[in-house]
Amino acid sequence: MGGDHAPRMVLSGANIARKRFPDVRFIFFGREDELRPQLDKLKPLAAISTIVHSDQVVSPGDRPKTVVRQGRDSSMGLAIRAVKEGKAVGAVSAGNTGALMGLAYFVLRTLPGIDRPAIASFMPTQRAESVMLDLGANVHCDATNLVDFAVMGNVFARTVLGLQTPSVGLLNVGSEETKGHEALWEAAEILRQAGLPGRFHGFIEGDDIAKGTVDVIVTDGFTGNIALKTAEGTAKLLSEYIRQTFKSSFLARIGYLFARGALRKLRQRTDPRRYNGAMFLGLNGIVVKSHGGTDALGFANAIGVAVDMARHGILEKITADFAGLSRTVPAQTSPEGQAAAL
Amino acid sequence: MGGDHAPRMVLSGANIARKRFPDVRFIFFGREDELRPQLDKLKPLAAISTIVHSDQVVSPGDRPKTVVRQGRDSSMGLAIRAVKEGKAVGAVSAGNTGALMGLAYFVLRTLPGIDRPAIASFMPTQRAESVMLDLGANVHCDATNLVDFAVMGNVFARTVLGLQTPSVGLLNVGSEETKGHEALWEAAEILRQAGLPGRFHGFIEGDDIAKGTVDVIVTDGFTGNIALKTAEGTAKLLSEYIRQTFKSSFLARIGYLFARGALRKLRQRTDPRRYNGAMFLGLNGIVVKSHGGTDALGFANAIGVAVDMARHGILEKITADFAGLSRTVPAQTSPEGQAAAL
Repeated sequence: MGGDHAPRMVLSGANIARKRFPDVRFIFFGREDELRPQLDKLKPLAAISTIVHSDQVVSPGDRPKTVVRQGRDSSMGLAIRAVKEGKAVGAVSAGNTGALMGLAYFVLRTLPGIDRPAIASFMPTQRAESVMLDLGANVHCDATNLVDFAVMGNVFARTVLGLQTPSVGLLNVGSEETKGHEALWEAAEILRQAGLPGRFHGFIEGDDIAKGTVDVIVTDGFTGNIALKTAEGTAKLLSEYIRQTFKSSFLARIGYLFARGALRKLRQRTDPRRYNGAMFLGLNGIVVKSHGGTDALGFANAIGVAVDMARHGILEKITADFAGLSRTVPAQTSPEGQAAAL
Repeated sequence: MGGDHAPRMVLSGANIARKRFPDVRFIFFGREDELRPQLDKLKPLAAISTIVHSDQVVSPGDRPKTVVRQGRDSSMGLAIRAVKEGKAVGAVSAGNTGALMGLAYFVLRTLPGIDRPAIASFMPTQRAESVMLDLGANVHCDATNLVDFAVMGNVFARTVLGLQTPSVGLLNVGSEETKGHEALWEAAEILRQAGLPGRFHGFIEGDDIAKGTVDVIVTDGFTGNIALKTAEGTAKLLSEYIRQTFKSSFLARIGYLFARGALRKLRQRTDPRRYNGAMFLGLNGIVVKSHGGTDALGFANAIGVAVDMARHGILEKITADFAGLSRTVPAQTSPEGQAAAL
């Protein structure tokens, strides 16, 4: 029931995903009287789907705390409980992010050794794709949280992105070890010592995200959310500039006619729907958040993210990596900058 | 002496600025044996310039604290002291940002009522230009700092951008008043009550920067620095995508030939040199930081920023605005979210 164009967009998205993943089946949670007639119009989807009725719907304006207390029988709550009970391998929602994270955390809890879950997403870069986390689950993060995110991101890059030794960077305001704040210095020191099954690159800056300097970008949820949305806003601004450019003169319009095919590919490449589907990592269950304003194609991509996570057994791999991790800072190796600031 | 291509780039930049601002004169601080022969080649510039010799040069790797203690006779230190002593209306440097801010703060101090200076820059948006601060001077900011930045940004928008009632937004992870952290809630409450000579919009998100939702974007230096560099990185990524697009097929190459003029304008519009020149606001003197990797054209723009600030009497206007400002939070109007979180 979540998102600007639900439930039609959700059903159409599943109908696209059905063709991509023929072995996947669907459970739709929400008002049966709304869902049933629309689902019945999509016969092949209806054949592999069930509906679980719920009268209660989480609204975009609902407070996460209230939803966690009172919304466990909402369509969102029931979807997450289906994951908990093993009836679904993952839940995908385009609804209220805070409520979804709150319910998911309350119902599923975190994997062993993980204090807080994080929101992660793919980021397009000059090299390939990177994964960035946290994108908004945790406004305040200490060093341990950042280290946890690094480990989870690392697992994700190895499994879903298929990289053997992914590089991990901590987002900071400079690459020197004296830049930033205490939590970053401490996290860097732990990661240098931790024997991450990947490569710890050190600190990176905002422009390193799009450069693809590292495969895994680790940051607190406040900074990550703002970096993600700043990148989205800048991409939209540039797309608007390009659109204006090809309308700015007669010759430019002719140029557009010739380059139309290539420009269509550019549009596809920068289509935000390609990157739809933020993963909740660290939970004992798969939950993916779709952008609320997306369409069926974007929602199908979010479903694809959940399918990928399940196929790669990401929960088991995160658990295994955490079991082998040391997160103690060896005091004698503290860098000068850290000592000065603590 | 600062920047990747100094001192030649600095002299060439001044030579461009000289034509734009015929009434401006220049003092160059640095090694006279290096500067003199290069300056003498630019006769019209030499005629309106003097050189103040210094053997000591601040390096990019120097720690700000060390520079503040030992670098007051460096070329950077002497330039700032010239501002303090009224020998120059402003200082422009492409050197070490932290050292420049440290020296500027130590030598010039802040304007009355301002605790900490901020780094500000123009940001291109879908509407026009906005100003964003802080971009890295203060990693940790409390509510009072954020309010100060809002007032300074407001003055800047009124004077240099020429807006009558600029809108001010606090960068956050959501527009609802319960999103984010304590310092933001408290700053928002003060700004709602403060009678800013402009309009307080409330919270904005990362994508609002490029949308141009507000004229003044206020944030702490950690977040602001990362948002700025993320935007720069994304713009570069998109430019690279566009370049590849027009090389991707024969038709696209032909399209490029027709659209070449329009695309050249697009390149000019997105040229980072246009936005070169970060302002240090809140100091009792004008200091502008140029990007270290810029060229003469970019440096000329940074000089232009300093000239604009001086011409608009920005220091006097900031002082006047601070004198009339109330920064106390009326306790009875604290929003529920704030009360819950404190």
